[in-house]
Amino acid sequence: MFRESIYHRPKDNYAYACTNDRLHIRIRTKKNDIVQVKLVYGDPYEWIHENWVQHEKDMFKRGSDDLFDYWQVEISPPYRRIRYGFLLDDGTDRLFFGEKGFFDKIIDDPASYFCFPFLNPADVFRAPEWVKNTVWYQIFPERFANGNRDNDPENTLPWGSQEPSPDNFFGGDLEGVIQKLNYLQELGVNGIYFTPIFKAFSNHKYDTIDYMEIDPQFGDKDTLHRLIEACHERGIRVMLDAVFNHSGYYFQPFQDVLKNGEQSRYKDWFHIREFPLRLQPKPNYDTFAFVHTMPKLNTENPEVKEYLLEVGRYWVREFDIDGWRLDVANEVDHAFWREFRKAVKSIKPELYILGEIWHDSMPWLRGDQFDAVMNYPFTTNILNLYARGNLTPKQFVEQMNTILFMYPDQINQVLFNLVGSHDTPRILSECNGDVRKVKQIFTFLLTFIGTPCIYYGDEIGMTGREDPGCRKCMEWNRDQQNRDLFHHIQHLIALRNNYPLLGNEGELTFIQPAHDDENWIAFVKKREGDQALVVLNPSDHVTDFQLPDEFCTSPLTNLITG
Amino acid sequence: MFRESIYHRPKDNYAYACTNDRLHIRIRTKKNDIVQVKLVYGDPYEWIHENWVQHEKDMFKRGSDDLFDYWQVEISPPYRRIRYGFLLDDGTDRLFFGEKGFFDKIIDDPASYFCFPFLNPADVFRAPEWVKNTVWYQIFPERFANGNRDNDPENTLPWGSQEPSPDNFFGGDLEGVIQKLNYLQELGVNGIYFTPIFKAFSNHKYDTIDYMEIDPQFGDKDTLHRLIEACHERGIRVMLDAVFNHSGYYFQPFQDVLKNGEQSRYKDWFHIREFPLRLQPKPNYDTFAFVHTMPKLNTENPEVKEYLLEVGRYWVREFDIDGWRLDVANEVDHAFWREFRKAVKSIKPELYILGEIWHDSMPWLRGDQFDAVMNYPFTTNILNLYARGNLTPKQFVEQMNTILFMYPDQINQVLFNLVGSHDTPRILSECNGDVRKVKQIFTFLLTFIGTPCIYYGDEIGMTGREDPGCRKCMEWNRDQQNRDLFHHIQHLIALRNNYPLLGNEGELTFIQPAHDDENWIAFVKKREGDQALVVLNPSDHVTDFQLPDEFCTSPLTNLITG
Repeated sequence: MFRESIYHRPKDNYAYACTNDRLHIRIRTKKNDIVQVKLVYGDPYEWIHENWVQHEKDMFKRGSDDLFDYWQVEISPPYRRIRYGFLLDDGTDRLFFGEKGFFDKIIDDPASYFCFPFLNPADVFRAPEWVKNTVWYQIFPERFANGNRDNDPENTLPWGSQEPSPDNFFGGDLEGVIQKLNYLQELGVNGIYFTPIFKAFSNHKYDTIDYMEIDPQFGDKDTLHRLIEACHERGIRVMLDAVFNHSGYYFQPFQDVLKNGEQSRYKDWFHIREFPLRLQPKPNYDTFAFVHTMPKLNTENPEVKEYLLEVGRYWVREFDIDGWRLDVANEVDHAFWREFRKAVKSIKPELYILGEIWHDSMPWLRGDQFDAVMNYPFTTNILNLYARGNLTPKQFVEQMNTILFMYPDQINQVLFNLVGSHDTPRILSECNGDVRKVKQIFTFLLTFIGTPCIYYGDEIGMTGREDPGCRKCMEWNRDQQNRDLFHHIQHLIALRNNYPLLGNEGELTFIQPAHDDENWIAFVKKREGDQALVVLNPSDHVTDFQLPDEFCTSPLTNLITG
Repeated sequence: MFRESIYHRPKDNYAYACTNDRLHIRIRTKKNDIVQVKLVYGDPYEWIHENWVQHEKDMFKRGSDDLFDYWQVEISPPYRRIRYGFLLDDGTDRLFFGEKGFFDKIIDDPASYFCFPFLNPADVFRAPEWVKNTVWYQIFPERFANGNRDNDPENTLPWGSQEPSPDNFFGGDLEGVIQKLNYLQELGVNGIYFTPIFKAFSNHKYDTIDYMEIDPQFGDKDTLHRLIEACHERGIRVMLDAVFNHSGYYFQPFQDVLKNGEQSRYKDWFHIREFPLRLQPKPNYDTFAFVHTMPKLNTENPEVKEYLLEVGRYWVREFDIDGWRLDVANEVDHAFWREFRKAVKSIKPELYILGEIWHDSMPWLRGDQFDAVMNYPFTTNILNLYARGNLTPKQFVEQMNTILFMYPDQINQVLFNLVGSHDTPRILSECNGDVRKVKQIFTFLLTFIGTPCIYYGDEIGMTGREDPGCRKCMEWNRDQQNRDLFHHIQHLIALRNNYPLLGNEGELTFIQPAHDDENWIAFVKKREGDQALVVLNPSDHVTDFQLPDEFCTSPLTNLITG
């Protein structure tokens, strides 16, 4: 037995409450090393005649990646407390594994076991229920639709007349979104994520000038009210983008510091290493990256904190928004996000809090900070298989399992799954214009767990390399739209809504290809009495796929063809 | 290379800020598998000519346990952000390891690296500085000294006239402690941890009746004021015991529920599964263990929360206590403890918050909840070696390394290290009366890192098995005290105070015995220009110990003999 490969540590993704009375326990073992794992557990205080009362339950191998097998089991401890360990069998040896290490046999002292001390409801990770049933649409407002010519910025270019550049403007606005809600409803999405709409200098608006005002190029507060009301009437949720890591250059407090230096009353609103301020070549104050026009906000300063928390509260309270997407979320302190969560959830408990984090995000997903993060590891894996072709289906599945077992199940159900955004090349361009691949990618995205998001225009086959290329004006000319792709995605969304097993219902398991030359990806979702199978062939040629036994005994319905 | 044995995940004990500008990075590898590890790192936004700027730094093997080697390095990222990976060499192969797995060579895409996004001071774990320089003395007030006969409970027995039982009383009180402060000062301790002193029914007072009153058997608020003032005048800190997991049976709100059942306005102060209440055989409400006289408090109820937070604040604000020890801390929700920390630290930032947790406690030690926990794994390891004799010195050192690498360094410096308490048999009894072993144990405890604690009477060789045996009346007759042991401990405390390297200064490394038959335990603490070596022989016979080379080149001072 490869003892050094066995990993478990209580809490996080290895032992967590999934509801108020159920716990999931997982353990990671070297791939193909262990044939059976039993959980040995009991209430630490339950003794009969000086013997600790123990129970056993089989764990099941839920998936594997390139190096490891992941085992899982669910239990409901009657008194909400347990001590537990693992009985591991590799076919030759049987070892017990607990907090104090490995033992030849099951031991009877709960002090040597792992501890999940108490299942307190306050600590159970809980995201809003509606998120699981949402299909998002990401809108970059300057480029989606121009509904009102009167608020066009100076030098606005005719819609789509030029390639997007870092500083050109095409007049997209909120009125335009209102006018296109029928289109979104036709597509079937029921959530919109807007990149920033507050007053800012650039076309992307990530350089906020005033967090309490709508950018006049996009409309005003009345427009936003009308937009959100119109969305809610149609059952569409609205998520705004909070850029709290840094402000823009023209944010009044930063201008004050630029003007008054050390005398500015705002000097502690930022992280200034020395005065006078130097902007070039590297600023002598903290910034987003080394961008001197994006000074990092000092979120530990009580004044800044209260200002930003009020921003967070204001748009929820006054505009009834449904979500906050947090830009560069992992560079802001955890302490701030804990306060932020309390502040906004106290107004609207069902608000969705989504952090932009590209890496492993467990430290932000413990129930006290975010509900989810943007699932870029998911994106990368999809691109590696379909666009870059540097993975086999077997490796793709393994990598997807690495991602799945990185978090608790209920987090996976609300992770913001995307295949492109304003920060990445468009999916069709990544696939070198191969629409078949894009169709398959959306099939995967829209039948997988998580809360999927479509970047505006991807559904009609728009192209574009990285920023600014991916920020073209939305193509509204139907003749220029790939309607076939649109209908494919529309169909998938409808299927996802009609068949909960294609969404977040049931338990997901990949069928793992045994060899690198197998050209299929397949996963099953099961719940009592019902199961769904999704099979994809990511290759260019016909391939064989052996239907699992459990699908051979009863009639199958092909959900795509009906 | 045993890739499956390699473990790293950012934050917690594997990547943490130890100060506002320094990070520690650790990695765990299979024992004796890897010969060299380099950290490869850089600022994610620092690129020159489209090449990401990377740096390398050697990691060093800081210790090993039975299965793993632990490597560590310290870095100070100039812009407080890093992406990092590991270059691992097993003498044959060299592999790069990052968040996306293993690669044949160093890769140049920071997205595949591990991420420590930003070093925010608000998130740096920080315990009060004074804790590192404190030697504690634990007092069980009913059994330490009777200073005032007027407050003796009915049926008080003559001091020490009987063996302690679960329900007898000997009259110990706070006045008694005041009268014995000279003794404590003579011993040299500078912190007192009191088990509960609030009004309660039992002799141990863990069954609180009134959290806002001193138990009348112990004195009154004036007595506590005088006690704390007298302690502070002598430089002695005072820590009280907060029993917030459960109340006592006679706590007025619980009495109200017993009387009024479902009509009680306090019915949601507890976790009652059904009415009417049933006390036996198992209560139908949550309790500590299955003890019906200790109903679990509902710390998620805002009223209960506010009541307990005010208890937390009150004794800090009005009595200037220096620490709260939190009973059964891990069965209370994390959310409560986060609020508790804010509440009490807002009054006294230098307050020490110590949780009673017997298991791996990382989830409570992330800077948002506790400053430390009672280090029972340390206790167990000491007992296994000295008392139970079921470990060799080699295994002892390995197990101690498991414990050390479970937490960040700055947590290890404030962990509450103990070799016995009111909840365990006394150390001399554990050692079957062998004072030589007890002396060595205290030598280890008082030269190791952490904040050590002496359970009252252990310093004079008192005996006693588990509760109630370990709760005998303090022996004040000098003829009955082991004065030799007292002087030994007194000497060690003085040495610890005079030589910071015997306390929490310097970096601790064990010298690891290569074989099970080596009969020594040795560790080194090093800081610039200075180092200390502690060597112990836990066996009954003379043994050889090879002085490390670095101690052979310059003169040594024997600190014990002077």
